[in-house]
Amino acid sequence: MFESSRRQFLLGAISAGGAALLAPSLRAVTRISSPNADPVRAPTQLDAGWQYRRGQLEGVWEVWREEEAGLWQSVSLPHCFNHADACDPDRPYYQGHGWYRTAIAVANPFEGGRTILHFQGAGQTSSVWVGSTFIGTHKGGYDEFVFDITDAVSALQRTKGAASTIPVAVLCDNAPDPERVPSDLSDFCLYGGLYRHVNLVYLPALALDTVHILPILRPDGSAIVSVRCRLYNPRSISSPCKLSLEIFDPQGRSIHHWSGSISPMSDTNAPVSASLPSPQLWSPETPALYRCRVTLSTPSGTSSMEERFGIRHVEFIEHGPFKLNGKRVLLQGTHRHADHAGVAAAMSDDQVRQEMRLIRDMGANFIRLAHYQQDRLVLDLCDELGLMVWEEAPWCRAGVGDASFQQNAKDMLSHMIEQHFNHPSIILWGLGNEDDWPDEYPSVDHAAIRAFMTEMRDLAHRLDKSRLTALRRCDFARDIPDVYSPSIWAGWYGGNYREYEDSLLKQRELVNRFIHIEWGADSQAGRHSEDPEAVLRRVPIGKGTEERGLAYLNKDGNVRVSKDGDWSETYACNLFDWHLKTQEKLDWLTGSAQWIFKDFASPLRADDGIPNVNQKGVVQRDLSLKESYFVFQSYWSKKPMVHLYGHSWPIRWGKPDEPRIVKVYSNCEHAELFLNGASQGIRQRDSQDFPAAGLRWNVIFRSGKNHLQVIAKTGDVTLQDEIDLTYQTDAWGTPAELRLAQIPDKDGRVRVTASLYDAANILCLDARNQVRFTLAGSGKLIDNMGTTHASRVLQLTNGTASISVDTGSDSANAKNASCVVGITVQDLPPAFITLLGATTAHGSLK
Amino acid sequence: MFESSRRQFLLGAISAGGAALLAPSLRAVTRISSPNADPVRAPTQLDAGWQYRRGQLEGVWEVWREEEAGLWQSVSLPHCFNHADACDPDRPYYQGHGWYRTAIAVANPFEGGRTILHFQGAGQTSSVWVGSTFIGTHKGGYDEFVFDITDAVSALQRTKGAASTIPVAVLCDNAPDPERVPSDLSDFCLYGGLYRHVNLVYLPALALDTVHILPILRPDGSAIVSVRCRLYNPRSISSPCKLSLEIFDPQGRSIHHWSGSISPMSDTNAPVSASLPSPQLWSPETPALYRCRVTLSTPSGTSSMEERFGIRHVEFIEHGPFKLNGKRVLLQGTHRHADHAGVAAAMSDDQVRQEMRLIRDMGANFIRLAHYQQDRLVLDLCDELGLMVWEEAPWCRAGVGDASFQQNAKDMLSHMIEQHFNHPSIILWGLGNEDDWPDEYPSVDHAAIRAFMTEMRDLAHRLDKSRLTALRRCDFARDIPDVYSPSIWAGWYGGNYREYEDSLLKQRELVNRFIHIEWGADSQAGRHSEDPEAVLRRVPIGKGTEERGLAYLNKDGNVRVSKDGDWSETYACNLFDWHLKTQEKLDWLTGSAQWIFKDFASPLRADDGIPNVNQKGVVQRDLSLKESYFVFQSYWSKKPMVHLYGHSWPIRWGKPDEPRIVKVYSNCEHAELFLNGASQGIRQRDSQDFPAAGLRWNVIFRSGKNHLQVIAKTGDVTLQDEIDLTYQTDAWGTPAELRLAQIPDKDGRVRVTASLYDAANILCLDARNQVRFTLAGSGKLIDNMGTTHASRVLQLTNGTASISVDTGSDSANAKNASCVVGITVQDLPPAFITLLGATTAHGSLK
Repeated sequence: MFESSRRQFLLGAISAGGAALLAPSLRAVTRISSPNADPVRAPTQLDAGWQYRRGQLEGVWEVWREEEAGLWQSVSLPHCFNHADACDPDRPYYQGHGWYRTAIAVANPFEGGRTILHFQGAGQTSSVWVGSTFIGTHKGGYDEFVFDITDAVSALQRTKGAASTIPVAVLCDNAPDPERVPSDLSDFCLYGGLYRHVNLVYLPALALDTVHILPILRPDGSAIVSVRCRLYNPRSISSPCKLSLEIFDPQGRSIHHWSGSISPMSDTNAPVSASLPSPQLWSPETPALYRCRVTLSTPSGTSSMEERFGIRHVEFIEHGPFKLNGKRVLLQGTHRHADHAGVAAAMSDDQVRQEMRLIRDMGANFIRLAHYQQDRLVLDLCDELGLMVWEEAPWCRAGVGDASFQQNAKDMLSHMIEQHFNHPSIILWGLGNEDDWPDEYPSVDHAAIRAFMTEMRDLAHRLDKSRLTALRRCDFARDIPDVYSPSIWAGWYGGNYREYEDSLLKQRELVNRFIHIEWGADSQAGRHSEDPEAVLRRVPIGKGTEERGLAYLNKDGNVRVSKDGDWSETYACNLFDWHLKTQEKLDWLTGSAQWIFKDFASPLRADDGIPNVNQKGVVQRDLSLKESYFVFQSYWSKKPMVHLYGHSWPIRWGKPDEPRIVKVYSNCEHAELFLNGASQGIRQRDSQDFPAAGLRWNVIFRSGKNHLQVIAKTGDVTLQDEIDLTYQTDAWGTPAELRLAQIPDKDGRVRVTASLYDAANILCLDARNQVRFTLAGSGKLIDNMGTTHASRVLQLTNGTASISVDTGSDSANAKNASCVVGITVQDLPPAFITLLGATTAHGSLK
Repeated sequence: MFESSRRQFLLGAISAGGAALLAPSLRAVTRISSPNADPVRAPTQLDAGWQYRRGQLEGVWEVWREEEAGLWQSVSLPHCFNHADACDPDRPYYQGHGWYRTAIAVANPFEGGRTILHFQGAGQTSSVWVGSTFIGTHKGGYDEFVFDITDAVSALQRTKGAASTIPVAVLCDNAPDPERVPSDLSDFCLYGGLYRHVNLVYLPALALDTVHILPILRPDGSAIVSVRCRLYNPRSISSPCKLSLEIFDPQGRSIHHWSGSISPMSDTNAPVSASLPSPQLWSPETPALYRCRVTLSTPSGTSSMEERFGIRHVEFIEHGPFKLNGKRVLLQGTHRHADHAGVAAAMSDDQVRQEMRLIRDMGANFIRLAHYQQDRLVLDLCDELGLMVWEEAPWCRAGVGDASFQQNAKDMLSHMIEQHFNHPSIILWGLGNEDDWPDEYPSVDHAAIRAFMTEMRDLAHRLDKSRLTALRRCDFARDIPDVYSPSIWAGWYGGNYREYEDSLLKQRELVNRFIHIEWGADSQAGRHSEDPEAVLRRVPIGKGTEERGLAYLNKDGNVRVSKDGDWSETYACNLFDWHLKTQEKLDWLTGSAQWIFKDFASPLRADDGIPNVNQKGVVQRDLSLKESYFVFQSYWSKKPMVHLYGHSWPIRWGKPDEPRIVKVYSNCEHAELFLNGASQGIRQRDSQDFPAAGLRWNVIFRSGKNHLQVIAKTGDVTLQDEIDLTYQTDAWGTPAELRLAQIPDKDGRVRVTASLYDAANILCLDARNQVRFTLAGSGKLIDNMGTTHASRVLQLTNGTASISVDTGSDSANAKNASCVVGITVQDLPPAFITLLGATTAHGSLK
């Protein structure tokens, strides 16, 4: 007897545009958590063996033309066809058709069984063919969807033999579509491609479709767990079958078992309940996960699913605070986009794990997944790591479009809730974001937006009575979501961070349940400042701290740090520091989420320090840490840590004997600083002593090389950190000359660094000029990564910029590889340097 | 009283997809040939004041967003949005949305008059809005179309005041569309944009729409001229009005006048006829053009049109020959695409005039306009220059699609005939091209293609009883068009040019009316050969000369000059020479058309000598002449000419004292050649003496510099030509080193030339390696032009390649401009050279 075993439930109510969608309510899964005595048909992850081709075709038959085989390139999934162009400084990211094709071996072990293609998400509208048979279309870039290809496969196997492989084509289209959410005005790329896993699933003719588990914690500390199943029954089999259910506690012990006969024709089966007298509760500190295994036995085969769940009680007190399992918890959050250097939306599972681990290690207990449903792995990790989640439907920066638009937005909300219902980490369903944004439609129709938001909220409540809804920035509708965040960007888009608390207090009064979502600052990794508040001092206090309308375009002439500031890490750290110290002391505050953990690509940021990159991350787009990561860690992490500010600041400057501030971010009780071996005194940590919670020293550097060390202690733990730096006392004048140098880089590459000097040969340490690296000859600039070390156009950080060059030294042609790298900047002559394959050459071409 | 005066008739049967198309049968005009006593409302050419933006928008309101003004670039019409990317070697040409916007002053002088936007053609599907009001969509990239914007303009003027300018937006979309002809498999780019003029036209409420003039030459030498008018009457005005008609002879004398009252509600007005007892006939030698002025006087205003026509009799005798006005004429033709370096489809009127003049000066009396309706100016020039025309509907490389596809193909045929009916130059309506091409649709359905071709032929006959239909290459349907050309590519895609006559004789027997359309060879401008027939000698004779199926892909392993040849100008000249001498002697032959006058961009030619360029032209894509231009001129032109082969061949090679052939192309009676001042003898021209009609000499060059001069005489005309060349006697070995040199170029640019040497420092004169120019620093390669002097990727011609570089020397930043140009080639080290602004620097960076 074969068994189809999957984890997770199948999808309840997919809405597909295609006429041939055969499996409207099916969601398949990717992993098997418990093997079975019978041969288990695990879903097959279809990562390998794909080919990709960009561009529109005349029809699906073109996919199978042998003459055009050369136009296809081999790829493996996940694959995003914007992997290399999202941050291209010279042309917009591709929005259009991307075709995929593959051939899969299909051997369904179930008599009369169903064969399913399961997509964990693909951008943005996806159509599927088996050979030249159109199967269906799914509109939406972030939810999961399935297609039942049973009949098309059978037809092909009848014609070509049962052993023949099945040709499958998928068209992904990310061209703008006014009837699809999110809006193209969104501040992120609407990526295209099969950027999440695709799975092949075999099911019996009658199989489990969806398992929803609703655990309720009672006031007496016991819990009641309701399990509701839905079946996939496309042939309308009516004979009764057996359903059994087993629950395992977090330690893997079977603690509950039930089985009974059910009628497969009843649309929704009555829930089965289990009572747990003394449950282990899920929380960030102890993310206890139960498992529930459901098995459906039918004459045509057995299907089973295993779902995890957690037991916890969530409460947003009116006007605050937030309580988890009856205790006040400050939501300490950040944000995540599915975006990464070199792969865009197609992050590998390992990259996702690394990123989520870093977020948790920073001390966050909360995350808003912006601005769309994310991959199942992300939610699994939130469950496991203890990260509470605001997950959001992609109704972003749009007003209200036509009926198709509204249906799409509601579909995306429904699918998210149906598909992620069981995750204990999720505490809020986000309805949308910034839906007061002008220009998606000819006008911002307040009444229509309010009406639609109400519809969205009610839909979410209907689908999930256990969770509240939330929304950020749409002030004229702030009474509609259960939990609301206005726009407060104190010290960045509006006002001064010193008025942050005032803004919170004012906004708190305007809604029943207040939360502060999105705050922060851009910073160009590696840029530092000796006077980071120079611009902030010119920003008047008391004029509001929100990001208004299209104010981000910076056209109103007001002084605003986002427009006039130096975008240094130093300023960003101070801004974060101030916000965190303020949040920490407010006992009524539910919490907040800083925007955003990682720098990410955005088509709206062409003029920024790295073109087309939103640089508000505390890590770069490749997860390399900025200094601000440690500011958060010093406030949020319970694990002792210490970090000297300035690891990426090799040269500080000032007059001889001028005191310079040295900051230490640490959660330790006290710390002692040593400059060139001499103690500069011990400081006690006091989070309300801004900046750096009192762990700061004014020191006198000697001109030239200096060494800094800090020793921090908390309880019986002692930690240390140290950096070397140069102190430059020569003041510089007008930039006069760019110079290039090269050093060996990893993977046989060469790193080229450009530095800007004045006429007296002094490095211009505050230079922020935009530069462009160019290359003649063989080899390739490693660019378009959206980081300060892999972008061919970017602003200098403290007078320098660098890029890595693949000189082709590891190719068959290595002996010949050589190139000239040039750098250009406005108003100065370009500079050049010759690179000779793997060999490091010295001297420039000037 | 105002008068609307236009030349040409208005369109009879436009088919537009848009619901709001108000003027289904209107075609406006651009020029006024005779001023009138009353104020004449000439159409306004809307060339200036447009802005362009690439990419898909959410909706038309985005066009008018003030915040996004920076995303638009100013352009003037004609404008093709593929002007720079059609020959880009690194990425496909853009196929998608291109938006245009403008604001026009509208002041219609007619009470209740109509305001019309008239497009002379735009690629490929165009939609029009006035403000945010959708007006309509037109599908088809080559025919003219109009939109009546009267009501939308009135609504705006009511709201914003009569003096306000009218915002107009046009979306051009050239993304593949399986329901639009031509197929994307076509061997040319389906360009996008407003690449022909757009005109603003004011009409009275009731106006002239179409004037068709049909002159019939009677056996007695007299002619009867029938004039049929159609009116534009959107408000269904029924009161009678006055129509008058005046005919002028080619010398401008009024020779006929008629006027009468007509009823505007009769759908088609009965023709008015005029008899000309002794007409002046139109022919290539005497392209006599009559004019017919038609005036419609109504209470709401007067409209008049002036059309030209010609009187000639055309006859395709079964099995040949062709007769014009009763006399046998050999059709000596070539082809034209609307495509040009730097502008793609958006050629200026002056460029079109220059090109058509060059074609006529080459001696052609015939042209096939491939593969679509061309701009009205092209047809006007054919009328004036005496070029007989095969104009063609763009049913190209497609089988038969669905009903929408078929309707589109029929629309394109109808519009072409309706719009170009009056041109005396047109002798054939082409129905399509290569409609046996595989892969546009899943199968090549012979029966369906035959049925549809029959429908197309019958439609053409119905619309124009005076002209025959024609089609090239679709052998299974060769009985359907009135005149048919099979595929004969002797010496290129198939077989040997020495079997050309055999192929003609065989094919002639298979159809009633035979013509030979498309023959020729690719040649890379500047490449020459001392042994051009080396490959041809290996091509077996007697295996057919057609281009079969997908044989152009060169995958069958047969020896074929197109695959294995050197693509030299030398070979192409010999091939042309052989064809022309053969055609000249066949008294039964109707004629032929060589493919093609000018090199042009094609997405199917990525691997060719200049990537994405079809190089079969006798001129380059910027109209610079190849040597073969003179071969044609020597056969076809009546004006005496002489041309020494090899003006672009600076270095010839061979052993010391080895005889080398010198060829002279001339239509003179005899010619004498001088080498370094010494006569090499006189040769008499004999067109059947191949090659060069006997005007060839075997000479012994001295090693080093040589001077050649030819003196040709015909009657009392003496002409001469001369060239300097170097004779290289050093044989070269394996290429070892690329070297770069620079010289000043026009417009302050620098021309960089790369040459390939062997290890003994000998120039490798047969090297054809593909090279790539790259640039670091400031400045810009002048590339993507599709010529051998302006492409960054191309094959060497005789061991060299060159490119022009804009060093930025004429910019404000001139003092700083400098760059390094690199060149790379497979298996050899790259080479570099430094360019210093406007100053010429010597020495390379190696």
